[in-house]
Amino acid sequence: MDCYCLLFDGFESLDLTAPVSLLQRMPDMRLHYVSHQGGMVPSQQGFAIDTVPVWVPEPASTLLIPGGQGVRLLTEHQDFLYDLAIWAGQAQTCLSVSNGSALLAAAGCLDGVRATTDKRTFAWAQNLAANVHWQPFAAWVHDGKFYSASGMTAGMDMTLSFIADRYGKDLAETVAAQSEYVWQRHADAPAPRRVF
Amino acid sequence: MDCYCLLFDGFESLDLTAPVSLLQRMPDMRLHYVSHQGGMVPSQQGFAIDTVPVWVPEPASTLLIPGGQGVRLLTEHQDFLYDLAIWAGQAQTCLSVSNGSALLAAAGCLDGVRATTDKRTFAWAQNLAANVHWQPFAAWVHDGKFYSASGMTAGMDMTLSFIADRYGKDLAETVAAQSEYVWQRHADAPAPRRVF
Repeated sequence: MDCYCLLFDGFESLDLTAPVSLLQRMPDMRLHYVSHQGGMVPSQQGFAIDTVPVWVPEPASTLLIPGGQGVRLLTEHQDFLYDLAIWAGQAQTCLSVSNGSALLAAAGCLDGVRATTDKRTFAWAQNLAANVHWQPFAAWVHDGKFYSASGMTAGMDMTLSFIADRYGKDLAETVAAQSEYVWQRHADAPAPRRVF
Repeated sequence: MDCYCLLFDGFESLDLTAPVSLLQRMPDMRLHYVSHQGGMVPSQQGFAIDTVPVWVPEPASTLLIPGGQGVRLLTEHQDFLYDLAIWAGQAQTCLSVSNGSALLAAAGCLDGVRATTDKRTFAWAQNLAANVHWQPFAAWVHDGKFYSASGMTAGMDMTLSFIADRYGKDLAETVAAQSEYVWQRHADAPAPRRVF
């Protein structure tokens, strides 16, 4: 499987690495680190990752979108949103973590879709895209080809459930155990705590 | 506070980003990404991070050592271990995640110290350094200036406890809540599950 990790200035690196550390264990996984323009992309944590420009993803591929402080600026970037709608349309599955969902929502991809985002910026996301069926309590949500997670560790729960759907529950259980992680299997279960 | 994140070929990126996504929220935090020789260092997840060569850390600094598949090779690299013993000796605090502890142990830093490492490579670590008081069940352990964590998410528990010790429990609670993370506060509490 090809997984395209879409990076942008000020992405939250844990939103990226929590999913990819699990996905990387899949036997057929090819991880691609991409951005709108390519080049070195700085994370919120002060290090940069080299990326290639996004092209239209391979069929049957997965698009992974982390959150981060850089999201707000991007939601006003019409060229980016236009292209994101194409990439997300082409991908077989879209995984978003934290306010990465807001990017998909701003691009119109989540209209009529049940989804969640991190709870600190929830009201902002609601205002940004009123036609999304935003879930205010869920740690993570699955609707069709879209998996969205709330806080950072919920990204691991969501990713394990995607692995279970795609590769079978046994492999997901094995990966969770190898990571010494207690998997919250159930979509729409509440996030650990509401902060705001 | 200066935190030196010591990277090496084949480090596990989640072992790095789980601690630094929390540490980054501290008001005085300066994160440094360093390696023995400097330059681009590839993670286990296929992306690389630019680093500067390690020099002797500033006084009162923290040394963070992730684990990863690259650890075994490094435990046979005497020049690296010699320098690591100097860096760890100078640091006020050492945080290690997963088999990052094995590096400190191979450098002789953990002789007589209570510590843990990930449970899949536990027997190997025991053979590597018999004078460490290895804790076979603990998710994370604190002994003096050394904090060590078992699996990847235990790195978050350990880091939050370090934050509580250094900056106070209120700030640690706030950071945990902002991350929607259920903090396992107690050192020596068992890891979520024993895998092997």
